[in-house]
Amino acid sequence: MATAKAHTNIALVKYWGKKDQELIIPQTDSLSLTLDEFYTTTRVNFDQELTADQVMINGQQLAGPAAAKVTHLLDIVRQRSGLSARARVDSQNHVPTAAGLASSASAFAALAGAASRAAGLQLSRRELSRLARRGSGSATRSIYGGLVEWQAGHDDQTSYALPIMEQVDFGIEMIAILVDTHKKKVSSRFGMQQSVSTSPYYRVWPEVVARDMAAVKKAIAAQDIDQIGAIAEENALRMHALTLSADPGFTYFDSDTITAMTIVRELRENGVNCYFTMDAGPNVKVIYDQVNRKAVYSTLAAQFGTDRLVVAKPGPGIEIWND
Amino acid sequence: MATAKAHTNIALVKYWGKKDQELIIPQTDSLSLTLDEFYTTTRVNFDQELTADQVMINGQQLAGPAAAKVTHLLDIVRQRSGLSARARVDSQNHVPTAAGLASSASAFAALAGAASRAAGLQLSRRELSRLARRGSGSATRSIYGGLVEWQAGHDDQTSYALPIMEQVDFGIEMIAILVDTHKKKVSSRFGMQQSVSTSPYYRVWPEVVARDMAAVKKAIAAQDIDQIGAIAEENALRMHALTLSADPGFTYFDSDTITAMTIVRELRENGVNCYFTMDAGPNVKVIYDQVNRKAVYSTLAAQFGTDRLVVAKPGPGIEIWND
Repeated sequence: MATAKAHTNIALVKYWGKKDQELIIPQTDSLSLTLDEFYTTTRVNFDQELTADQVMINGQQLAGPAAAKVTHLLDIVRQRSGLSARARVDSQNHVPTAAGLASSASAFAALAGAASRAAGLQLSRRELSRLARRGSGSATRSIYGGLVEWQAGHDDQTSYALPIMEQVDFGIEMIAILVDTHKKKVSSRFGMQQSVSTSPYYRVWPEVVARDMAAVKKAIAAQDIDQIGAIAEENALRMHALTLSADPGFTYFDSDTITAMTIVRELRENGVNCYFTMDAGPNVKVIYDQVNRKAVYSTLAAQFGTDRLVVAKPGPGIEIWND
Repeated sequence: MATAKAHTNIALVKYWGKKDQELIIPQTDSLSLTLDEFYTTTRVNFDQELTADQVMINGQQLAGPAAAKVTHLLDIVRQRSGLSARARVDSQNHVPTAAGLASSASAFAALAGAASRAAGLQLSRRELSRLARRGSGSATRSIYGGLVEWQAGHDDQTSYALPIMEQVDFGIEMIAILVDTHKKKVSSRFGMQQSVSTSPYYRVWPEVVARDMAAVKKAIAAQDIDQIGAIAEENALRMHALTLSADPGFTYFDSDTITAMTIVRELRENGVNCYFTMDAGPNVKVIYDQVNRKAVYSTLAAQFGTDRLVVAKPGPGIEIWND
């Protein structure tokens, strides 16, 4: 029996599109910030007496395709370890599920950590990152804390995350605006596949990412939060342009998303530097230097209320322990 | 003294980007539907006693860059006709100004018609179309009624509109949702220039348009409103993806735009075929077969109220008369 705790991450340069659906090899590199406030704690226990994997999330039994994804990752662990037993998985998710806050990132990172340890495998963080990738692309990055790069690679061996700056010692911070915590309509898995196969602009995306990756690494080295934020905002919009331009076109934005984007732009026009990013859901995350926290928070609270805001700082990498 | 009445038009395949800023030669062809409900009536009187052009719109004197654009078109007319007199321009605009309902299309078409006639020029409709183009790109198409193509061409001689179907004898219709009739923040002139010069996706746009132009002409020939609507919706989203992906990225959508898009998609899911398009502003125009008018109208009215809805049918080409 083993338990792992992994934090979610928000991509500053987005992962949007796979080269290999089965192995989850992405089309491009990506870069994220792991967040302290959102995490998943998962305990795994392989038990000969079970006839099937049993997966509980926040006390609810998981079924259907979501449970099948968990079993798929457990099968990989069983294959590597030679174990045949089914597992009891008990997961506490401190992330609103499936609303673009990347709960699958922390969930599959924690599952990879706990399952591999419970099966007796001693994996390096790089190997853990590769294993987490098989569950969900963004989970690849949630093995590490702070600022993390996922190198696209070209196969299972070469596609893994690397820490860029594990201890973030400058004031970058985010406020997540919980626009809609209901389950989203278009999964990121399906949404990115639609973009790859039907957006005429998708073929330019790898170029966009290559430029943004180089620029954001420079900005991180210079601890230039404004530059990091500006790159993240531009990159997010260019990712969302790929959903609008798909066939049929779609958008993860809802009306509150537009309102939040407008407020961020207005704050900036008024001299309070902050930047937005959105993943495959309507939630908006606002990036800023912590010296601006009060101004950003109070302006967002006036529109959305404090109940819908979460302040998040850079978070740590995965922790795994034997129970 | 002469008066002209010209109707606005809504592009089904968008004009988004110039090859030549001064002559307003577009990057691509485009195709539009002229609408009956929105029009401009303009009277022009060249008068030796005036020391400067005087431009009234809806009883208000026009000044600044907007007045300069009018004088620019009048200068072209003066140059061609040999007239030197300044003009009195009196314009009644039955279009909400600068909210993406293309008031400049009807305004510059009417101005070209009235000014050329008042100056004694006898221009063919093709020549009128080229003249209107010098005021505003979309005005090129407002010379003709019904479904109209603007052939990009490559210079002043070759860039003009052509009628595709002047009498539209099938049931295509639109409802314009007046989301925000305030002046927009980013002019279409500036917005398209930003897209051309900073969106990495812009280079793919000419390809998108070439495909959509061919497809929409086929759909028009087949009087297939669903196909026309689907192409228009996809083309609009791909145009708006160019604003999101500009640097800095921007959007003409406001929160009501997203709400309207969602309602249209839901209507479609419920078997009521309709499609949206948006120009350089937050207003949404819904395209449908008139047999669906009641269902579309009542659903939109429940959200936006009847005051903000205008039903528009295909409209006629320019009329010009001597007063």
